[in-house]
Amino acid sequence: MKPPVRIAITGGAGQIAYSLIFRIASGEMLGPDQPVILHLLEVPAALKALKGVLLELEDCGYPLLQNVVMTDDTNLTFIDVDYALLVGAAPRGPDMERSDLLKVNGEIFKVQGKALNEFASRDVKVLVVGNPANTNAYIAISAAPDLNPKQFTAMMRLDHHRAIAQLAAKTGAEITAVKNIIIWGNHSATQYPDISHATVNGQPAKSLVDQDWIVNEFIPTVQQRGTEVIKARGKSSAASAAFAALSLMRDWAMGTEQWVSTAIVSDGSYGIAKDLVYSFPVTIKNGEMSIVQDLEIDEFSRSCLQASQRELEQERDTIADLLH
Amino acid sequence: MKPPVRIAITGGAGQIAYSLIFRIASGEMLGPDQPVILHLLEVPAALKALKGVLLELEDCGYPLLQNVVMTDDTNLTFIDVDYALLVGAAPRGPDMERSDLLKVNGEIFKVQGKALNEFASRDVKVLVVGNPANTNAYIAISAAPDLNPKQFTAMMRLDHHRAIAQLAAKTGAEITAVKNIIIWGNHSATQYPDISHATVNGQPAKSLVDQDWIVNEFIPTVQQRGTEVIKARGKSSAASAAFAALSLMRDWAMGTEQWVSTAIVSDGSYGIAKDLVYSFPVTIKNGEMSIVQDLEIDEFSRSCLQASQRELEQERDTIADLLH
Repeated sequence: MKPPVRIAITGGAGQIAYSLIFRIASGEMLGPDQPVILHLLEVPAALKALKGVLLELEDCGYPLLQNVVMTDDTNLTFIDVDYALLVGAAPRGPDMERSDLLKVNGEIFKVQGKALNEFASRDVKVLVVGNPANTNAYIAISAAPDLNPKQFTAMMRLDHHRAIAQLAAKTGAEITAVKNIIIWGNHSATQYPDISHATVNGQPAKSLVDQDWIVNEFIPTVQQRGTEVIKARGKSSAASAAFAALSLMRDWAMGTEQWVSTAIVSDGSYGIAKDLVYSFPVTIKNGEMSIVQDLEIDEFSRSCLQASQRELEQERDTIADLLH
Repeated sequence: MKPPVRIAITGGAGQIAYSLIFRIASGEMLGPDQPVILHLLEVPAALKALKGVLLELEDCGYPLLQNVVMTDDTNLTFIDVDYALLVGAAPRGPDMERSDLLKVNGEIFKVQGKALNEFASRDVKVLVVGNPANTNAYIAISAAPDLNPKQFTAMMRLDHHRAIAQLAAKTGAEITAVKNIIIWGNHSATQYPDISHATVNGQPAKSLVDQDWIVNEFIPTVQQRGTEVIKARGKSSAASAAFAALSLMRDWAMGTEQWVSTAIVSDGSYGIAKDLVYSFPVTIKNGEMSIVQDLEIDEFSRSCLQASQRELEQERDTIADLLH
């Protein structure tokens, strides 16, 4: 039996975590031969509910689950963890501006970044799911100078899945027939779902659909999909978000030659300002993400890439005070 | 690719279904090479929330999921289904006696039994999860005279898992080291979690723990575990219930030589009144459950078996009018 790996999940009693924890414990993230120890963080008011999750985990009797650490202490949460899924975030209150939300969450992710910097495994891989995810990741990276910024990513994988599903449905193809979809930018309504380089059963996607559908249906549907789910369910996406997080972490651990979209620190590729946490198409090998290079970017795409960059720059400016 | 199988799930927008649907779609119930078509039933008021579940399912893009039928029509739900997981049930209202609950649910399961009788595959396998599960199954069986009563079971698997987890924790053993646990009787506080025939790493469990622990800790802890989860989570068990349902259905489809506990129509084994839906230890081969025979039942066990039988007889008498 392999030695266990430690996986931290914040917001442990929340909806996404509830869809995530049991699947990680059953081996869906790291495979059926990898024992895991879960570190679950919650705010004090939610520890009782988290205890209920623990009871249910015990009742499932997952052989791979070696231990569970349950705490409201951020430092304790991250001791020696190999993976951290930062799922918990403060929700937007009724009278809150977006800038307030950025600041409230900024404080949380600053504390978590510091704790990761001090206590986590030196090879920790950190996925930020809690929104606003890109800027939360940006803050955590800033607070963790001893870790490589490449050890952090913010989740765009759900948007990536949504875009694949829309294109597959439109073209009547299987999900697995769709390749090289890209989501660029921020995990927000300015994200740019891009099929310029996508193929469906090996054929260029752009030859199968018209520009009007792309601009007026595909892009807004993917951008607004989260809102559509909330309207129907009365709650935000949880099971599909958990599945996206699992998919990304599995790819990060095991590697993938498929293009996947994930938000990482910009190295200036495609003219995106350095250090912004921006979604690019990447491939993953030996735990390292590489941005797919040299793609042709047409004028329409360029303006979309820039619009999302501008939003991320504004978010960065809003939380600039927190970085000191 | 195999032809798809059709799986009905009632209470499709509920908590247990939310933990169940995505895992069935990902292949956890019937394996990674078995395409599925889901038939999801909800009451009209919950169809909008169910639509949200459908959006999330699409966003996961599970290659095995060929189609989803979403309806509030019971007959439509069960057309040609190979498996039916009857998860939805009316909850106990504030001023409701247990007898009221039995009757309200009795009506629901009578309608579902009739629809299964008329529309389902002749080989359908039906798991009743919604409580009071045993008597709900009894009613559905009564309403489905053209199906074999052995095509129905009521879920005791969560209790079975809970008992294994408690004994493993007490003896410091791995979950997989515990064999031949039995839950007898009704899925209620009268159930009898029995370790008389259980082994832990091949040793008789009774030689490892004392009778006082069995009577005063083990049995009440397993019997009251559902209540303990509700107290902590503020909601009833969902992920662990979904996992138990998946485990049972997988065993039913694939077979198991391990003893599992599940409630089936009594054939008179162990002196249990015929036709009650009572939990026994069973093994499963080629889709057929066989009650493990010739176990020695001591005096203490006998009285526990009888107490749970008496409760099921009372439940049967309460709903007797519904059967005509």
